[in-house]
Amino acid sequence: MRPDQTLMFAEAADAADAVRRQAAAGELYRSAAERLRALDPPLVLTCARGSSDHAATYGQYLIELRLRLPALSQPPSVGSIFGAVSERLAGAAVLMISQSGRSPDLLATARACREAGAVVVALVNDTTSPLARIADIVLPLAAGPEKSVAATKSFIAACAALLRLVAEWGGDQALAADLATLPGVLDAAWRADWTPAVDRLSNRPSLFVLGRGLGLGMAQEAALKFKETTGLHAEAFSTAEVSHGPMALVRDGFPVLVFPPSDASAGGLAEQIAAFRRRGAVVVSAGGGLGADLELPLARDLGETVAPIAMIQSFYRLVNAIAVGRGFDPDHPPFLNKVTETQ
Amino acid sequence: MRPDQTLMFAEAADAADAVRRQAAAGELYRSAAERLRALDPPLVLTCARGSSDHAATYGQYLIELRLRLPALSQPPSVGSIFGAVSERLAGAAVLMISQSGRSPDLLATARACREAGAVVVALVNDTTSPLARIADIVLPLAAGPEKSVAATKSFIAACAALLRLVAEWGGDQALAADLATLPGVLDAAWRADWTPAVDRLSNRPSLFVLGRGLGLGMAQEAALKFKETTGLHAEAFSTAEVSHGPMALVRDGFPVLVFPPSDASAGGLAEQIAAFRRRGAVVVSAGGGLGADLELPLARDLGETVAPIAMIQSFYRLVNAIAVGRGFDPDHPPFLNKVTETQ
Repeated sequence: MRPDQTLMFAEAADAADAVRRQAAAGELYRSAAERLRALDPPLVLTCARGSSDHAATYGQYLIELRLRLPALSQPPSVGSIFGAVSERLAGAAVLMISQSGRSPDLLATARACREAGAVVVALVNDTTSPLARIADIVLPLAAGPEKSVAATKSFIAACAALLRLVAEWGGDQALAADLATLPGVLDAAWRADWTPAVDRLSNRPSLFVLGRGLGLGMAQEAALKFKETTGLHAEAFSTAEVSHGPMALVRDGFPVLVFPPSDASAGGLAEQIAAFRRRGAVVVSAGGGLGADLELPLARDLGETVAPIAMIQSFYRLVNAIAVGRGFDPDHPPFLNKVTETQ
Repeated sequence: MRPDQTLMFAEAADAADAVRRQAAAGELYRSAAERLRALDPPLVLTCARGSSDHAATYGQYLIELRLRLPALSQPPSVGSIFGAVSERLAGAAVLMISQSGRSPDLLATARACREAGAVVVALVNDTTSPLARIADIVLPLAAGPEKSVAATKSFIAACAALLRLVAEWGGDQALAADLATLPGVLDAAWRADWTPAVDRLSNRPSLFVLGRGLGLGMAQEAALKFKETTGLHAEAFSTAEVSHGPMALVRDGFPVLVFPPSDASAGGLAEQIAAFRRRGAVVVSAGGGLGADLELPLARDLGETVAPIAMIQSFYRLVNAIAVGRGFDPDHPPFLNKVTETQ
């Protein structure tokens, strides 16, 4: 099997067009934003599992930094198995993010949040799903059918959907302008050649992926893809959190993949990378200028909200190649199904 | 070096007495609870790094399940490098958890939360620290001096402090009764012999630690301790989240340490463990009855809020032994300092 023969490859390659299709549903996002502005929630919750929860991480930082609202993650189990969704969520906005819209824990949480008086927004790929029927507002991801077990374009579509919603909600022209560049940015990111990283990142059984702020969700998503598709144990950390203990492992050939932020959180990263390299770690960075062992191509002058999405798009092509090179079929990872139903 | 010669061993052994010392400061917890009841916050935020953030995970579930308030994690960077703490936090309660009370990101976030009108509660071990000076309310962890880089008794003291605060806040007699058993439970947990797990958990370079609900913070803490002290790459997942991709790694001798919940979230765990074992994974569980390859001793009939803390106490003794056995000094992990100052 060649890397370009997988479903994962074909679906990831479709991400730019998915974002173009989503733009055609822009009116739904505008009216949702209008309703949320009128609601003026004191609090935004996200609720999701797996890759969708990594998109939620990206969305939380967008909402905190651009809308200046507390935006926080609700564990689905609190709604499902514990039946303990707070009555204090009246007037809050709850963003449920899901490709399939079918996991029982998300459905139970959506129902409980509505009963508590929250407004439930479903960002779903399958708009005929049970989650879409429960929600107050349905926003289509418009990723199109995704059949590879490893999510790719639905993750990017979820990030784009959050960017679209926040740009409309905040009436943020700069953010809308950045969003408009996203399809072209994704096309270019898909063409970027990250293959020099294949060997560097797969010569040890485990590795770290680092991000921060808007890039943290991308690091989480990349680490999950490594585990799902390549047999390598990758774990994600913020560049701040990795200093609190985990970096004891970063030595003697341990690979570290960095998704550098292009905002205020980049301070100190070059020094951190230099310290890792002095201990023998192998550091690979998306983009240049930080003194990594290997610097992967990344377009310059990307908007700070768009750059992380470009990185994950180039990464998807890379990780698909790593998986195939290691003899795995990324479309059918061991023991996994496309729709994971958890209570 | 023998395992019982480390500072980590001596300090972990002091955890039960730390909780007894903390009980002597009970009046401070009672008056804090009174003030929080009067505040009646719509929302509780936790803010912490490293081990303290794992105690925060435990606290979030306590608050959600026992006080039925939304309890969510505030990334310290939003207050520090982004300067974007929401103005909507007026009237919220913010629990800052820290051993040293000195990391600049926590201090910046505490100041920003106060300026936004939130009530800041510092749960700190060093009550002379800058964080204690900034906070509205100071609650001493009373762990006593902790000098090993790997936190142990300060983590347990932070969990006990959260349990103490929530029991008082909710006027919850059952919770107070469970808390009263904790010192004796910790003494017994320290004596429990978990050494049969040493080989099972350290014959591969990486492993998973699973928990859920009140046990998730313990799984996070255990995974960090593995990374800090043993050179093994352990990663924590909820038993629900591990099904969304990560479990592709769980096969062919891959070790899995499970901290089973004793509440509603235990459903399906025996089936999950059986499925892991069919693929050749080596499953070790705290306590019995779930069909793991190895069942570690755990007292019966523990309160569901106390059982997770007993598990981590037995685990500390185990991981210290694994570290020493692998030639590491857990008191001085590679490249780490006791007080980590992040921006």
